[in-house]
Amino acid sequence: MRVLGVDPGLTRCGLGVVDSSRPGTASLVDVGVLRTPADADIGLRLHGIERGVEEWLDRHNPDAVAVERVFAQANVRTVMGTAQAGAVAIACAARRGLPVALHTPSEVKAAVTGSGRADKAQVTTMVTRLLRLDARPTPADAADALALAICHLWRGAALARMAAAQAGLRTGAGR
Amino acid sequence: MRVLGVDPGLTRCGLGVVDSSRPGTASLVDVGVLRTPADADIGLRLHGIERGVEEWLDRHNPDAVAVERVFAQANVRTVMGTAQAGAVAIACAARRGLPVALHTPSEVKAAVTGSGRADKAQVTTMVTRLLRLDARPTPADAADALALAICHLWRGAALARMAAAQAGLRTGAGR
Repeated sequence: MRVLGVDPGLTRCGLGVVDSSRPGTASLVDVGVLRTPADADIGLRLHGIERGVEEWLDRHNPDAVAVERVFAQANVRTVMGTAQAGAVAIACAARRGLPVALHTPSEVKAAVTGSGRADKAQVTTMVTRLLRLDARPTPADAADALALAICHLWRGAALARMAAAQAGLRTGAGR
Repeated sequence: MRVLGVDPGLTRCGLGVVDSSRPGTASLVDVGVLRTPADADIGLRLHGIERGVEEWLDRHNPDAVAVERVFAQANVRTVMGTAQAGAVAIACAARRGLPVALHTPSEVKAAVTGSGRADKAQVTTMVTRLLRLDARPTPADAADALALAICHLWRGAALARMAAAQAGLRTGAGR
């Protein structure tokens, strides 16, 4: 299964594509960052992000898209940009009928480090290790996009296992 | 000049199209509300709004799109939905090369009532009066979308007049 992770932002939008066949395994397909100029019109910025996401979807053909879910942040201006860029990425995926999942920063941290309160450096360290990369991905937005993709691949598998186990209990197969 | 006003929201997204040739005049072209089910996937909701906005752009062919600018609200969840729906509408306009303008709620209120602190009922009353409608537009999101369009038409004209007056002063034409 292949997942595109999106760490949304207007100034820097992190994109990371990861393949995984089972939890504990993951391999890098591509990673990068879309940038739009801070002084550009909001329409041009969102359209630039849209074109970039479309290009990545065309190029890598993922099975699902995982986007960071933002609940609250200190800076309302930052939240707005994150929400706007994320919405454009979600709409790109939905237009193709691709499943979209939102994961909170703490879910992502827990998936790759084991702790929902890990710091950014720890997340980058684990992403580098899990994908067996020669160098730490930069900027942080790129590493976060990869962590989101890994989170989605492994969480999805864990949820599917739990659902299967519960189905087994219900049909008596677990006895 | 024709403007599509968008009062963005995931549950209700107000759309209003207004024509105006000069400040003080305005005529209704169309008004309505896009709705998406609260229990639907965020991807489907944003895609639904995108399809609706595209349909209105195709049908009415506006010269510009005006979207409400949100700075801060008490409820972060509401802000997120507003930002997401607004981003999709902005991207639709930008994809066609249409100019997009953002106006704050107080700019909109000031444009149609003369006061930036007017309440919703007063805005609806003035929209009904300015467009010479037989009935008050409902829901409030529809009235707000019309107020946004009127604000954009009249503010744009006022700004253009000021720019022309300043150019006149600079060239000495005003003496």
